[in-house]
Amino acid sequence: MNGSPISYSDKKYKVLGTRPIRHDGTDKVTGRAIYTNDVFFPDMVHGKILRSPHPHARIKSIDTSAAEAMDGVLAVVTSKDWPELKDKVAELGEGAVNLADLAGNLLAMDKVLYKGHAIAAVAARDVHLAEEALSKIKVEYEVLPAVLWVQDAMQDDAPILHEHLRTDHMGKLGDKPTNIATHLLFEQGDVDAAMEKADVVIEREFKTASVHQAYIEPHNSVALWNEDGHLKIWTSTQGAFTCRHQVAELLQIPISSVTVTPCEIGGGFGGKISVYLEPVAALLSRKCGRPVKMVMQRDEVFEATGPTPGSYVRVKIGATREGKLIAGEGYLAYDAGAYPGGMIGPGSMCLFSCVDLPNARVNGYDVCLNKPKTQAYRAPGATQAIFAFESVMNELADTLGICPIELHLKNAAKEGTRRVDGPIYPRVGLVECLEAAKSSEHWNTPLEGPNRGRGLAAGFWFNIGLKSSVSATVNHDGTVNLLEGSTDIGGTRTSVAMQLAETLGIAAEDVHPKVVDTDSVGYTDVTGGSRTTFATGLAAYEVGLDLRQQLCQRAAMLWDCDAEEVKFDQGTFSRNGDSLTFRQLAEKLPETGEPVVGRASISKDVSTNAFGVHICDLEVDPETGKVRILRYTAIQDAGKAIHPSYVEGQLQGGAVQGIGWALNEEYYYKDDATMANASFLDYRIPTCYDLPMIDTIIVEVPNPDHPYGVRGVGETPIVPPPAAVASAIYHACGVRMFELPMSPPKLWKAISESKK
Amino acid sequence: MNGSPISYSDKKYKVLGTRPIRHDGTDKVTGRAIYTNDVFFPDMVHGKILRSPHPHARIKSIDTSAAEAMDGVLAVVTSKDWPELKDKVAELGEGAVNLADLAGNLLAMDKVLYKGHAIAAVAARDVHLAEEALSKIKVEYEVLPAVLWVQDAMQDDAPILHEHLRTDHMGKLGDKPTNIATHLLFEQGDVDAAMEKADVVIEREFKTASVHQAYIEPHNSVALWNEDGHLKIWTSTQGAFTCRHQVAELLQIPISSVTVTPCEIGGGFGGKISVYLEPVAALLSRKCGRPVKMVMQRDEVFEATGPTPGSYVRVKIGATREGKLIAGEGYLAYDAGAYPGGMIGPGSMCLFSCVDLPNARVNGYDVCLNKPKTQAYRAPGATQAIFAFESVMNELADTLGICPIELHLKNAAKEGTRRVDGPIYPRVGLVECLEAAKSSEHWNTPLEGPNRGRGLAAGFWFNIGLKSSVSATVNHDGTVNLLEGSTDIGGTRTSVAMQLAETLGIAAEDVHPKVVDTDSVGYTDVTGGSRTTFATGLAAYEVGLDLRQQLCQRAAMLWDCDAEEVKFDQGTFSRNGDSLTFRQLAEKLPETGEPVVGRASISKDVSTNAFGVHICDLEVDPETGKVRILRYTAIQDAGKAIHPSYVEGQLQGGAVQGIGWALNEEYYYKDDATMANASFLDYRIPTCYDLPMIDTIIVEVPNPDHPYGVRGVGETPIVPPPAAVASAIYHACGVRMFELPMSPPKLWKAISESKK
Repeated sequence: MNGSPISYSDKKYKVLGTRPIRHDGTDKVTGRAIYTNDVFFPDMVHGKILRSPHPHARIKSIDTSAAEAMDGVLAVVTSKDWPELKDKVAELGEGAVNLADLAGNLLAMDKVLYKGHAIAAVAARDVHLAEEALSKIKVEYEVLPAVLWVQDAMQDDAPILHEHLRTDHMGKLGDKPTNIATHLLFEQGDVDAAMEKADVVIEREFKTASVHQAYIEPHNSVALWNEDGHLKIWTSTQGAFTCRHQVAELLQIPISSVTVTPCEIGGGFGGKISVYLEPVAALLSRKCGRPVKMVMQRDEVFEATGPTPGSYVRVKIGATREGKLIAGEGYLAYDAGAYPGGMIGPGSMCLFSCVDLPNARVNGYDVCLNKPKTQAYRAPGATQAIFAFESVMNELADTLGICPIELHLKNAAKEGTRRVDGPIYPRVGLVECLEAAKSSEHWNTPLEGPNRGRGLAAGFWFNIGLKSSVSATVNHDGTVNLLEGSTDIGGTRTSVAMQLAETLGIAAEDVHPKVVDTDSVGYTDVTGGSRTTFATGLAAYEVGLDLRQQLCQRAAMLWDCDAEEVKFDQGTFSRNGDSLTFRQLAEKLPETGEPVVGRASISKDVSTNAFGVHICDLEVDPETGKVRILRYTAIQDAGKAIHPSYVEGQLQGGAVQGIGWALNEEYYYKDDATMANASFLDYRIPTCYDLPMIDTIIVEVPNPDHPYGVRGVGETPIVPPPAAVASAIYHACGVRMFELPMSPPKLWKAISESKK
Repeated sequence: MNGSPISYSDKKYKVLGTRPIRHDGTDKVTGRAIYTNDVFFPDMVHGKILRSPHPHARIKSIDTSAAEAMDGVLAVVTSKDWPELKDKVAELGEGAVNLADLAGNLLAMDKVLYKGHAIAAVAARDVHLAEEALSKIKVEYEVLPAVLWVQDAMQDDAPILHEHLRTDHMGKLGDKPTNIATHLLFEQGDVDAAMEKADVVIEREFKTASVHQAYIEPHNSVALWNEDGHLKIWTSTQGAFTCRHQVAELLQIPISSVTVTPCEIGGGFGGKISVYLEPVAALLSRKCGRPVKMVMQRDEVFEATGPTPGSYVRVKIGATREGKLIAGEGYLAYDAGAYPGGMIGPGSMCLFSCVDLPNARVNGYDVCLNKPKTQAYRAPGATQAIFAFESVMNELADTLGICPIELHLKNAAKEGTRRVDGPIYPRVGLVECLEAAKSSEHWNTPLEGPNRGRGLAAGFWFNIGLKSSVSATVNHDGTVNLLEGSTDIGGTRTSVAMQLAETLGIAAEDVHPKVVDTDSVGYTDVTGGSRTTFATGLAAYEVGLDLRQQLCQRAAMLWDCDAEEVKFDQGTFSRNGDSLTFRQLAEKLPETGEPVVGRASISKDVSTNAFGVHICDLEVDPETGKVRILRYTAIQDAGKAIHPSYVEGQLQGGAVQGIGWALNEEYYYKDDATMANASFLDYRIPTCYDLPMIDTIIVEVPNPDHPYGVRGVGETPIVPPPAAVASAIYHACGVRMFELPMSPPKLWKAISESKK
């Protein structure tokens, strides 16, 4: 049930808030859209990767000679084919990245660090020959003990992945090798003193399993290293420019000698920012002089691309009897996977992000262990943290006998709230989301029946700004071509085009958006961080202003007046009695001079904020521990919902992923430290057969950092579900769950134990 | 033998005038460059066209049912599939075009007007099935008498092609249908009075045969009419935007619903401006819902695409005893082919373009007849006219016993000369070309031996301005990506990129030019009219200024000063003691704000001018009439030779085509009015076995209408050869030739007759 947004703005729009058919819709439903696997060259060859069967081992030798000798095998590469990368770092958008680590994850150097770790790659005439060649590569291993759980990896006697890490479990730099890559500390106020004064203190521990983004399209790439030294890549990526940058740094070639064409993408959710196949396909192509296509199998996606961290989180909160939070303390240990650089930063920032908490401290640890290198997954790091925090909030509400909405309202983050990591919120919409929840039909409908319960939780995520570029040309039929560098994962061609249409006073359908390669538009950061509709949309707004200004000059030329005399309103240019619609003026452009072309680039350091509140009704089967979601409502502040259907889609998709994470999904490891369920048959993501339609309520509290008030909406909705589901389970059967997934065996066990 | 340009400018350049390797060179020589025939889709089908065996016939009926019933045939179209186009005209860049004529040339309406005229098209699973289907289409014809020669077509009793044409052979509008589409009259001064006063009057008649551009790549196109109504076209075209416009008008759909991707082009020379296959492939695609590829065979190219007009030209000049021209009169009748709209306009303008002639009159006639619709061919219309004029000039020189260079210098068009059609020349370089000829080693080396002769002729062509757009982005490795809409036929990626490189003070190799589709850059007119290096180069210069200005602002930001304080010189930004090279500044861009993107569009009504002078040495075999070119020098004012090798290439290529036109090439018609030599075996273009290396001398008289002084050079060099060759033949064997080609049978006959 999706109604109209609840708006806190009196601005009226012509295009924004409508629901036009997406520009790429036909191509998507007819199968004409070009995904990487559709890219074809007559002389193309196929690459496959040899992967480690061991979760941790030293590579003593690799003998590729038998594979190389095979008829139809054109190239074999190993980590020896990387250029010298030792001690090289590169700024790759999210801080300095150790290039040797990045390369080592793509083709292992001296050790393999997880099962599935790439060791060598082969290019052959066809995939079957390539697979056969892999079987002929002889690798000698010295198998080492493995560690899979973050707390185990922090022990003094844990197997060590990287000899150079030296941070101990207190966050101090020591002499002994450890697995701790980073320690973070955020603190404000006097936590210990405030905690002393609290009437109620609750402290709990939480654990979450590794889960995968589970995009439908596996990683796939085509690379052609041309004889003139120019490298062309077609790939499934969230950011063509970031891909270009990573590839150039890994191969130590100038960025301008790499062209990345972002093909359509079948899901990313943060997992398609890092490169996997692109540089390897490039190395193979350089060796064999042919285009090389590489496509992962599903087990490779699970075992060798980045899941989100498994985590251990401890939260302690102190509150007054009335439910006013006065102190909070958090300890987060996140699994980085095989190489440093996990999600501990945003996890730590988000832990207390939904509340106004003057006294707070967060310790965060990024810990290496023998699992694939973790990557971003929709609001990366936030879901684990906020599952813990909101669960404690719900327990506090239950303990104090306060309605959880009232408890949240009493403590809600709002304009002026200082988050533990420093920033002070501008106008944000959490209170409005809570009010929307409170007055919702869902919340006001009693839930009846045995083993049924209702839970509620809030959630938070940033909108990062960064850089976006667009350019636009006016066609003389009154339409506008829009070039953008943001890959379109969730309908952003349309949400960006609509902002340009609004600015020009024309129909959404009269803007023709196109996502182009890295040669054809200015630098644009990744589609991620809930930034595209927000930041690339801002660039679209600005290119609209640029075009408007040029068109005013043209109208002035036609009317023989100064450009300042020409007014623009609602798609019409006017001056005294004269007026021309956008289309009428466009038709006259050829006779008034040069073609009208606009361009805009933005760079915003500001990060803005999106809050959501979810309500979950469910029923627990106490005999099996199986949970059935009965009703679910996702409420979120979209700032301004450009295309409400896509906002609803994001809310629904995020909620479903969060519910999957809450109830079913996990990397299930066998005793030999290898994954037992690396297929969609065994790794259970929820489908439409498992869940009801997710209801949505869009709240619109305009973002002061965007001319149309837009907030990115893609990530926040994955955050609240685990805590909302856990609270509902408690209300259904009296059992508090502290570990994800709350899968039938675990819940059944907890119910059984609670009855003892 | 190619030396350094003879420069009349003291400007020094860093990039201009150098000879870097072309950016697309590797792709061209390795076969990686994508031509239309390389475009492939999995579900693509193949189209073929049924063509008329008769040069003139009424179509009584077309029965496509048997073809449609064939297994594997997916669509059949005829002119019935055109939308209603009667009386519709469109501005297609070169004046109003009758859309019904344009459509009728692509799929005949009620009559076929030339042998090879398209009647129906079939799309089938493969080419062979499509050809078989063509054979099953039954067409009933009423055969009509045909007319093939322009003077015949102007007779009162000539077979009439179009009932609505009414201009009589005096240029008056009458009641009777005629074949005359247009009559033009240009006049200045008092011709008759001046002619009376002349000491010498020479009047001669000239005839030229139809010749073809003979590009190596036949026409080929792929069209996909998508289910959402968007039409995508990949094609070999000189102008993607012009193609888009023609297709949209013919199909009566908005221009923005058509995207044209210009693939690489294997030669055009004016013949790939008009559409042939694109709209037909589109109609087939709409019917069958699949991408349709169409590729012409060579005989289709000759018989059904546009050759340049056959012509009848009469020139009369009056001069003083000293060789000063005082009056000129011209009559030109050009063959338009089957539909109105030939090359009579530029032919008439060019007739007296090389001389300062205060009293001149030109009558021009555009005449329809039963040959394919003519199209532009390198300096369209000029070669026929100037062959006539320069032949008369040479005869005048011979008559007066004046050196032809001196005669030309005495009369040369120069700054201030008013051409018969009105314009007054700005600074032009004809005198300098004549001086270069006079002091050339070639001219000063006596030609010895029997049956040998030397000839010289001047030539002229415009540089049209029109509209061009480019955009550019700065990469942080110090390179620049340049997007342009000008299809690259003769190396213009490089000549345009070099102008941007010069403006930014960086290396030519550090600009990465890319020719993109009609969605991805601002409107850009055709690559034609010698405009690309001139006009798109101007846009590249302007985008360079735009980038420089933005980069000055960034430098100012780094140095905390005003942008006005930052100076730019030779690729370095400086202010007081601070300085940064372009590359150093580019590397700092990510930290200084948004990506730097530039754009520039130009619209120039001005047409500038390029003159050339050719010297030809040859030997005639009096026994056979075979002519052997011994030595040939093409001299031309390039304004500023951006890439001298490409200028030399244009001079050489144009001269070779002009020599082919002079000596061998012609549409040879059989008695049944069909072409006898529609293949490269029988239609003899000169090859490297036929000709010596063409020497070149580049003269640089800067064009005042371009910041770097550029003049387009592509077309002028085809103009002088016929008159230069004819004069050399006269000096070799004493026979004056008035008809092209001066092929062995004709020359042998003339020699034989001269001996009687």
